[in-house]
Amino acid sequence: MAGNSFGDLFRITTFGESHGPGVGVVIDGCPSRISLSTEDFTVDMARRRPGRHAIDTPRNETDQVEILSGVFEGLTTGAPITLFIRNRDANSKPYEVLRQLFRPGHADYTYFKKYGHFDFKGGGRASARETAARVAAGVVARKILAPPRISIRAYTLELGGVRAGHIDFEQIEKNACYCPDREAAQQMEEALLKARQDKDSLGGIVEVRVNGCPAGLGEPVFDKLDADLAKAAMSVGAVKGVEIGAGFQAARFRGVENNDPITPQGFTTNRSGGILGGISNGDEIVIRTAVKPIPSIGQEQNTVNRKGQPAKLELKGRFDISAVPRIVPVLEAMVSIVLADHYLRTKALQADN
Amino acid sequence: MAGNSFGDLFRITTFGESHGPGVGVVIDGCPSRISLSTEDFTVDMARRRPGRHAIDTPRNETDQVEILSGVFEGLTTGAPITLFIRNRDANSKPYEVLRQLFRPGHADYTYFKKYGHFDFKGGGRASARETAARVAAGVVARKILAPPRISIRAYTLELGGVRAGHIDFEQIEKNACYCPDREAAQQMEEALLKARQDKDSLGGIVEVRVNGCPAGLGEPVFDKLDADLAKAAMSVGAVKGVEIGAGFQAARFRGVENNDPITPQGFTTNRSGGILGGISNGDEIVIRTAVKPIPSIGQEQNTVNRKGQPAKLELKGRFDISAVPRIVPVLEAMVSIVLADHYLRTKALQADN
Amino acid sequence: MAGNSFGDLFRITTFGESHGPGVGVVIDGCPSRISLSTEDFTVDMARRRPGRHAIDTPRNETDQVEILSGVFEGLTTGAPITLFIRNRDANSKPYEVLRQLFRPGHADYTYFKKYGHFDFKGGGRASARETAARVAAGVVARKILAPPRISIRAYTLELGGVRAGHIDFEQIEKNACYCPDREAAQQMEEALLKARQDKDSLGGIVEVRVNGCPAGLGEPVFDKLDADLAKAAMSVGAVKGVEIGAGFQAARFRGVENNDPITPQGFTTNRSGGILGGISNGDEIVIRTAVKPIPSIGQEQNTVNRKGQPAKLELKGRFDISAVPRIVPVLEAMVSIVLADHYLRTKALQADN
Amino acid sequence: MAGNSFGDLFRITTFGESHGPGVGVVIDGCPSRISLSTEDFTVDMARRRPGRHAIDTPRNETDQVEILSGVFEGLTTGAPITLFIRNRDANSKPYEVLRQLFRPGHADYTYFKKYGHFDFKGGGRASARETAARVAAGVVARKILAPPRISIRAYTLELGGVRAGHIDFEQIEKNACYCPDREAAQQMEEALLKARQDKDSLGGIVEVRVNGCPAGLGEPVFDKLDADLAKAAMSVGAVKGVEIGAGFQAARFRGVENNDPITPQGFTTNRSGGILGGISNGDEIVIRTAVKPIPSIGQEQNTVNRKGQPAKLELKGRFDISAVPRIVPVLEAMVSIVLADHYLRTKALQADN
Repeated sequence: MAGNSFGDLFRITTFGESHGPGVGVVIDGCPSRISLSTEDFTVDMARRRPGRHAIDTPRNETDQVEILSGVFEGLTTGAPITLFIRNRDANSKPYEVLRQLFRPGHADYTYFKKYGHFDFKGGGRASARETAARVAAGVVARKILAPPRISIRAYTLELGGVRAGHIDFEQIEKNACYCPDREAAQQMEEALLKARQDKDSLGGIVEVRVNGCPAGLGEPVFDKLDADLAKAAMSVGAVKGVEIGAGFQAARFRGVENNDPITPQGFTTNRSGGILGGISNGDEIVIRTAVKPIPSIGQEQNTVNRKGQPAKLELKGRFDISAVPRIVPVLEAMVSIVLADHYLRTKALQADN
Repeated sequence: MAGNSFGDLFRITTFGESHGPGVGVVIDGCPSRISLSTEDFTVDMARRRPGRHAIDTPRNETDQVEILSGVFEGLTTGAPITLFIRNRDANSKPYEVLRQLFRPGHADYTYFKKYGHFDFKGGGRASARETAARVAAGVVARKILAPPRISIRAYTLELGGVRAGHIDFEQIEKNACYCPDREAAQQMEEALLKARQDKDSLGGIVEVRVNGCPAGLGEPVFDKLDADLAKAAMSVGAVKGVEIGAGFQAARFRGVENNDPITPQGFTTNRSGGILGGISNGDEIVIRTAVKPIPSIGQEQNTVNRKGQPAKLELKGRFDISAVPRIVPVLEAMVSIVLADHYLRTKALQADN
Repeated sequence: MAGNSFGDLFRITTFGESHGPGVGVVIDGCPSRISLSTEDFTVDMARRRPGRHAIDTPRNETDQVEILSGVFEGLTTGAPITLFIRNRDANSKPYEVLRQLFRPGHADYTYFKKYGHFDFKGGGRASARETAARVAAGVVARKILAPPRISIRAYTLELGGVRAGHIDFEQIEKNACYCPDREAAQQMEEALLKARQDKDSLGGIVEVRVNGCPAGLGEPVFDKLDADLAKAAMSVGAVKGVEIGAGFQAARFRGVENNDPITPQGFTTNRSGGILGGISNGDEIVIRTAVKPIPSIGQEQNTVNRKGQPAKLELKGRFDISAVPRIVPVLEAMVSIVLADHYLRTKALQADN
Repeated sequence: MAGNSFGDLFRITTFGESHGPGVGVVIDGCPSRISLSTEDFTVDMARRRPGRHAIDTPRNETDQVEILSGVFEGLTTGAPITLFIRNRDANSKPYEVLRQLFRPGHADYTYFKKYGHFDFKGGGRASARETAARVAAGVVARKILAPPRISIRAYTLELGGVRAGHIDFEQIEKNACYCPDREAAQQMEEALLKARQDKDSLGGIVEVRVNGCPAGLGEPVFDKLDADLAKAAMSVGAVKGVEIGAGFQAARFRGVENNDPITPQGFTTNRSGGILGGISNGDEIVIRTAVKPIPSIGQEQNTVNRKGQPAKLELKGRFDISAVPRIVPVLEAMVSIVLADHYLRTKALQADN
């Protein structure tokens, strides 16, 4: 209700801020008897971590996941699983100057209007730090999707105007941009370096593909699979657009081009992106999201202070140049969470045999 | 849970099929003492109605809304408001041939996989008829938004590749395409006629603008205002993409272009589309949705039957050429519903004074 | 959220008032492919109906259930099922005098305080008429419980101080009090006649027994099976107390008396009423509810008017003497609804095999 | 959905087990700008703690509450508040013998049936330890109720058959039984000592009274204030019955005795327990709950093992004799949580002025 929970049957509630003790998530609705240990989180938490990359900010978050509840003798119990990721000591001094000023493009202004205050030390709940909890929850979601063999891959399709020319899943983990096209990855790196010199930042497009999803997931009308995927994607801070299958291109197609003729071998095209009437059709699910450039930039910007008076703001320090690579594992997690939820919902309402 | 409800505090549950007694909606969470009568629905129901338009299918749905509950002596009581729209007698014969075949681009296939049957007479819950209930609910939502003076306008930004060159709200109701640019409206009409000759259909883009929304609406993290708007939009049958503000264009902007400098007079640009960190910032809210071409076309198409065998399908009858104009009032309704819900949620959690 | 829905997976939303067009219920979360027709409701609707009984008010509600949605060719589709029961024309004249006065023991006063008005014509949502929708929903719930062979029986355990001495299910339908003890039933009838002469009303105790419930239904902590049963029972207008198994008697037992020793044949006693730690244990589930006497009585009573001034109220007409018999099918329905919901929830979260 | 959350607007989700790292709660829906610090929890956590009492088990839980999220510079932020209470190192040896045997009266058997395992080390989620999280959440709920001056008092009305003869709130904190009658408190102590000698345990009745609650809280039909209170109370492990106002006594009253005549000064009796039609009427709210005797007793008991074979079980160690005193602060917390939730819900749906 207050916005920190997602999912119906596989339900996650995240909590925590970037400058408090840590961030975490309670997962309520994970079936019992699934093996789970702290090691299961290592790879995904590392993928989301900044500093992986030559051009990233050199913060050294190791992001170890503690399991505070829900696991007994190495297996989930059916009880809520609480995952907690402690924050490292952050030097809160550089933020003190921000107590009075709203950073353009950030949530400072709107949080202040809504809550009567804002967390100038790091953005509070609007901090990208919150997504660490989502990635941790995604690890558990994928465990639920493993027996039905549903696999989810996210990658950078476009960054700073450079677009991947082809999709080679093998390449994704081989470059810091999570780009499935080796050559494009190099150009993306160059674009990032150039933007850093300009004290500027870059946006891009992240694409997610789901394979092995059986037909029948998704509920009609409001909880359509694509509607829930759109919400999940748009709930990630920097995302400003979502499309499924042909997406905005479908607006210019004619019916005959867009209709995906059906054959005994499946759908001959996949304009629908694997979802018809809000329900998976067994084909590959394809989602694309537009990621805006990071608002923290080193250039001087116009803003106002808490009293509404004009002010100049020049952020100090070293910033990430693009949120795109870090959002790749977050979107992978969110898509996994949506699918785990719908997988369980579909099971619940299936007719008894 | 089974997908037919939307909203938390202002909560709607739609029901009904195109070939049963009718479609309707229960609204739970409407404050008491708001005037409401059947006349309040006339204009909006007429706007959604097909047949308004020279090129539309000549069905004659009058779409009268009955109030089955929740109103006493002309005022809402705080009890659930049930709105019901009876279906006119439909000749079910033409559909009989569809009992065995899945129409490409429709939900027949996925409903069959999910539920073990599909409503070949008219699409069941996937029928556009269901949106009549949404439009009716939107009328009530707008009543809640009237005192805080929040206004919502939707229109056709693009249809069949023709894009409005400018936005003149006065034009919207003056043409059958709900296009805010008179000249573009004429070209859209021509594109529709051409597509009909080709036995084909067209998609487009619907834009919604919200004015007067105070800063502070939307919940952080998952129930961000843009996340709920994205879900609302994507839950409308033919929608395949959603973007807020700069949307997919933001993916190619640099930070300095996208950041919306803040001045005492407001945000100098509105790349964010009126939403920062998932919370309204007081600026105009701008949402765009991609609408796919209607899948029902008169050309012969490849499909399979219930047993998975290949088949040819040639739909008979007269079809709408584009869902775009009819989706305009539906999206207006959905955006109103999201805002009414968040308006009440914000009130609930505001600090006592 | 506004209180008119119940259940998570098998979710019902009731609507309607006693003096509007009718009352109804939307059921969202019923699996597809279950046979359902209007005839399925006849028996249960008749059981709840007043006028069945020599001493009841002679209103002649036939309570025919219309299926407005969710059934196609005789089978549920998985879409929301809407059931509607039209009100018969009621003469609204006798109520006009009540526009200014709050009836003691009724919800008039609290509705007025909450909503700024109250439905003096028949109690609005607080009318017993609303329970017709619950009974209709219970019929669908029982269809879900039929394959796992879960059966639910409610009956009058006590009425006007007369208590059933033994439980003979065969007797229940043979007397107008739904009492499982023939002799007690006769004494109850006499007590009712006596109370009518006194222009007074009677309360009593309704007991519900569930047989065939497998072990494992109910969720731990807040959604315990007994917690949801308690809520369901207490949500019925006249109910003022609920107990499970030994109930209030358990407060005076010692541990050794209350512990239900476990044997290979089951629990030797059933103090727990079939529920341990909020989860069914496979034994018979036993619930008892205290029903207050009907507040509408023919004697003159003290009250106040809308302005808070003292007034005398003498209700005219013929009233039911006790809500107990009519509550029997309502509680049967509510228990069925709780079990159907938990049955589906348990299925959803069961480990895949 | 999986049962670990409670409330709609003021929503709590508890997590944790007695033999893991600790127990905790996430509160989503607390308004911003409320002062909150770890000291606020000290008194209530101490009240719930065992060992306070000569006859309690000598475990030494200090139950310090850590605030993991949601507070910034001493004030709530509107973000989720996470409270965590670490478990002290427990010697897990004595429990090893319980791996195979179900303790009578405990949830071991039902958890095993539901989840395929049970936490033989301490009951997992069914452990009374979980209630520490509820008490912590209750502290925050009471902060929300402080400005409208709603106060909640719980106490032991009856223990081991000894009943308080009168209610003196001043006495409650002066005896280890939380009994509002000094003399009865002494007799309760004696009953506890006697039961310990018998290696047996005692149940009782806890009563809660709410003063200062304005008229208008509670939603009609399903989320009646009394229905939610009944669920809240019954969700506490040992509770087997709940009644409001006259409760089960109302079943034997006649209408004229039970109707609470209304006068300008209020209701002359309070049979209704402050709630009419599910909505508070401004009078004192009165709830009573039946608490069963603690199932852990030192006497030998019959049970079965995991394979269903008969076994004898003699629990070793020192046990609490009655859950009643420890449940007093838990019920106080649960009632506070229900009221905080309904207070916010009522605010949300109140008409704008």
